[in-house]
Amino acid sequence: MEDWSECLDVAVQVARRAGQVVSCAVNQEKQVSSKSTPTDLVTETDHQVEELIISTLRQKYPTHRFIGEESAAAGGRCELSDAPTWIIDPIDGTCNFVHSFPMVAVSIGFAVRRELEFGVIYHCFEGTLFTGRRGHGAFCDGVRLHVSRESEMSKALILTEIGAKRDPATLDVFLGNMRRILSAPTHGVRIVGSSTLALCQVASGAAEGYYQYGLHCWDIAAAAVIIREAGGCVMDTTGAPLDLMSRRVVAAGTPEIAESVLKLLQPIDYGRDDNDL
Amino acid sequence: MEDWSECLDVAVQVARRAGQVVSCAVNQEKQVSSKSTPTDLVTETDHQVEELIISTLRQKYPTHRFIGEESAAAGGRCELSDAPTWIIDPIDGTCNFVHSFPMVAVSIGFAVRRELEFGVIYHCFEGTLFTGRRGHGAFCDGVRLHVSRESEMSKALILTEIGAKRDPATLDVFLGNMRRILSAPTHGVRIVGSSTLALCQVASGAAEGYYQYGLHCWDIAAAAVIIREAGGCVMDTTGAPLDLMSRRVVAAGTPEIAESVLKLLQPIDYGRDDNDL
Repeated sequence: MEDWSECLDVAVQVARRAGQVVSCAVNQEKQVSSKSTPTDLVTETDHQVEELIISTLRQKYPTHRFIGEESAAAGGRCELSDAPTWIIDPIDGTCNFVHSFPMVAVSIGFAVRRELEFGVIYHCFEGTLFTGRRGHGAFCDGVRLHVSRESEMSKALILTEIGAKRDPATLDVFLGNMRRILSAPTHGVRIVGSSTLALCQVASGAAEGYYQYGLHCWDIAAAAVIIREAGGCVMDTTGAPLDLMSRRVVAAGTPEIAESVLKLLQPIDYGRDDNDL
Repeated sequence: MEDWSECLDVAVQVARRAGQVVSCAVNQEKQVSSKSTPTDLVTETDHQVEELIISTLRQKYPTHRFIGEESAAAGGRCELSDAPTWIIDPIDGTCNFVHSFPMVAVSIGFAVRRELEFGVIYHCFEGTLFTGRRGHGAFCDGVRLHVSRESEMSKALILTEIGAKRDPATLDVFLGNMRRILSAPTHGVRIVGSSTLALCQVASGAAEGYYQYGLHCWDIAAAAVIIREAGGCVMDTTGAPLDLMSRRVVAAGTPEIAESVLKLLQPIDYGRDDNDL
């Protein structure tokens, strides 16, 4: 049985290289355009970094499959098969990147037989690297990560992201969810603009929970392994097992916090990443 | 005429020392209690760090006055007189500090004849230092800061904080404000849990605007100088000149963004820091 540790080493190298390209591009003029909505931004750097990551990996692993944010936006299929599959977000937090707001990451997840094997997330501004490999723990720059053991919502810090849809009906549900979380009560809610780095905070024990509607498989693939290997749980907003393609997630340090969060949520329908299902 | 540059040097030294105490305390067990509301947290470290800052400064400047977050909570007066006055937040982002969420700062502002002369903000997790002195520019670790010149809300990133009050009426107004900002439209809203570090992002040009009801004079004093010296504007939420004691603020890179933000806001009444006025 393969343990995929060589693939993880390659992922770490390419994430660092990609992250350095992103860091260098932060202070340069950016060509910004929008995708699904006016707030769903993309830059030339997103394309360039995805191309760098995929071409490097494809050369080394020609039989593997690839799901990338920008390839998907260009019509590429988001399909998880049994084949070894790399799931890539070249710049998570593109809006932050456009503004040079310092929460931007490169995220590379890897699944085999539809099971996540490892994840690598590189924090481009801080130069820190989060990794997790199934059965082998989660680390930030070599230091083992542990989730928070807090089980009471009244002592929890909860993270979320706004999502790209800003129509009145979506905002109603988004703000209603935030209101119920704040009134649970909790210590507070934070919105940092990068799903993967927010999820890394849950893995690090710096926040108790995370929920979001509207994220994509490339936002959650790497982070899910890292949180689980740090002792936390990642699931569907219904409480069912995580469905990578469902565009919704609850993650938490403890099952109690996950349960408390998901009970307070009203769903927002963003469709699926594999929308032919 | 004094230029207060020696006081600024002393402030930088004491902010670094205080920030190191905060950094060391992050991974230790914390004794947490609450102040005005269950979500208005304080720890032993807040008290210890304020004591360290004030005793150091008082020894050097025995005729100066001091306004500190924890002294005020203990009944000390928040009064800005003509005397040289230090305005101190030992830990801005106490809730983040409690969770080890990495946005925590020491903030030291200095006013003479009710005018802000300089501000020093130390980012305890990153070890970066923001400074601004009236007429002499704003800097982060020696690099000059410049606000964003963006004037269109549709391309703006806006920051806010939730505030300590979580009663239904306050949440109605808070979430209504957030809804109008998101629908302006804007690129997005971020909530990082530290007013001073959010304001430093505006000074750095990484966000176009900031608004908050419920902050205190020690959250805004240092940051106001830094933003102004980076070319930005800081004002009351009514558009009037900033009133340090009014517990409300709009800050922005450009007057256009400040104007656009304040037009969308409904007020939340938090009283005043000098509540005998």
